[in-house]
Amino acid sequence: MEVLKEKILKDGNALDENILKVDSFINHQVDASLMQQIGNEFANHFKDYKITKVATIESSGIAPALMTAQALGVPMLILKKAPSSILNDNLLHTEVVSFTKKNSYELTLSKKFVNENDHVLIIDDFLANGEAATGAIRLMRKAHATIAGIGILIEKSFQPGRGKLEEQGFEVYSLARIAKLGKGIIEFVEES
Amino acid sequence: MEVLKEKILKDGNALDENILKVDSFINHQVDASLMQQIGNEFANHFKDYKITKVATIESSGIAPALMTAQALGVPMLILKKAPSSILNDNLLHTEVVSFTKKNSYELTLSKKFVNENDHVLIIDDFLANGEAATGAIRLMRKAHATIAGIGILIEKSFQPGRGKLEEQGFEVYSLARIAKLGKGIIEFVEES
Repeated sequence: MEVLKEKILKDGNALDENILKVDSFINHQVDASLMQQIGNEFANHFKDYKITKVATIESSGIAPALMTAQALGVPMLILKKAPSSILNDNLLHTEVVSFTKKNSYELTLSKKFVNENDHVLIIDDFLANGEAATGAIRLMRKAHATIAGIGILIEKSFQPGRGKLEEQGFEVYSLARIAKLGKGIIEFVEES
Repeated sequence: MEVLKEKILKDGNALDENILKVDSFINHQVDASLMQQIGNEFANHFKDYKITKVATIESSGIAPALMTAQALGVPMLILKKAPSSILNDNLLHTEVVSFTKKNSYELTLSKKFVNENDHVLIIDDFLANGEAATGAIRLMRKAHATIAGIGILIEKSFQPGRGKLEEQGFEVYSLARIAKLGKGIIEFVEES
């Protein structure tokens, strides 16, 4: 997606070979108009997939997932990083270990909102090692739902996430695929 | 806002005199179409307020704040509940104590994204004691921004949040004002 790639080159900040800061338009300050374009792009790509729900992991995935859900005319599900004191009945949960952030967390989903008739599109901001997406998939399987595909804003293609997901038979649709990062260096995968 | 009040009566779940669960359309599963209507309602109400940014607190406020920002044509800011390991330069922070959830957390904002020229609309899902909104206001003042107003989806009008904010001179615009909660009981404030 050209508009996202241009924005990454203009406003992204590559700190080293692993870290790309996008906090001026995706993570902390959010470009609402860009999110709507992203939502339309995902909705258009997945329009014939009979998607019933769009799921994401709090909190950076919420903005693009909401716009995708709105464009597809389906609800969004926020997979929570820890069970709140109020929301605790009938929870499915799974542990996710994040190599990027060097922590682990519990990902939760209420059984009420997903069942075997659901065909779920998972949206997230980043794909690196694939831990978060794999955790989301585990939760959906526990709920007996099927996975329609995985939509990613920024894929670190030099890390194993895509490979792990494709090995399991999932389609990964990434709007910007990064081949190489370095201090001040951002190189995209060549499109064939 | 009639459509939100009807949704609360239909799908909200009043557990006791304090807790209203709205996890089927606001908090966990999110009704994307309703969020767009809510965003349009806030944008319409605040359209002449010269708003430069819409701010919210992760993560339940992100969906309505994004739709509001999109409708107003301005960026959204997500006030983070804890400094991430990546996002840590130039952070403003303040402590928020939540009576509802019986915990406290650090709310953070990067100085890069708000300055004295900003006129900020704060959006959140619930207003009860006003701790979260007051924390967001403190952060914006630390950044020397002004507050255009506070937009709330569901106000617990039997709690002191609105009063505290109005005492400080802020306008609070709530889409659904609840006069009374009880097990299975939801009563709205009578509109004059």
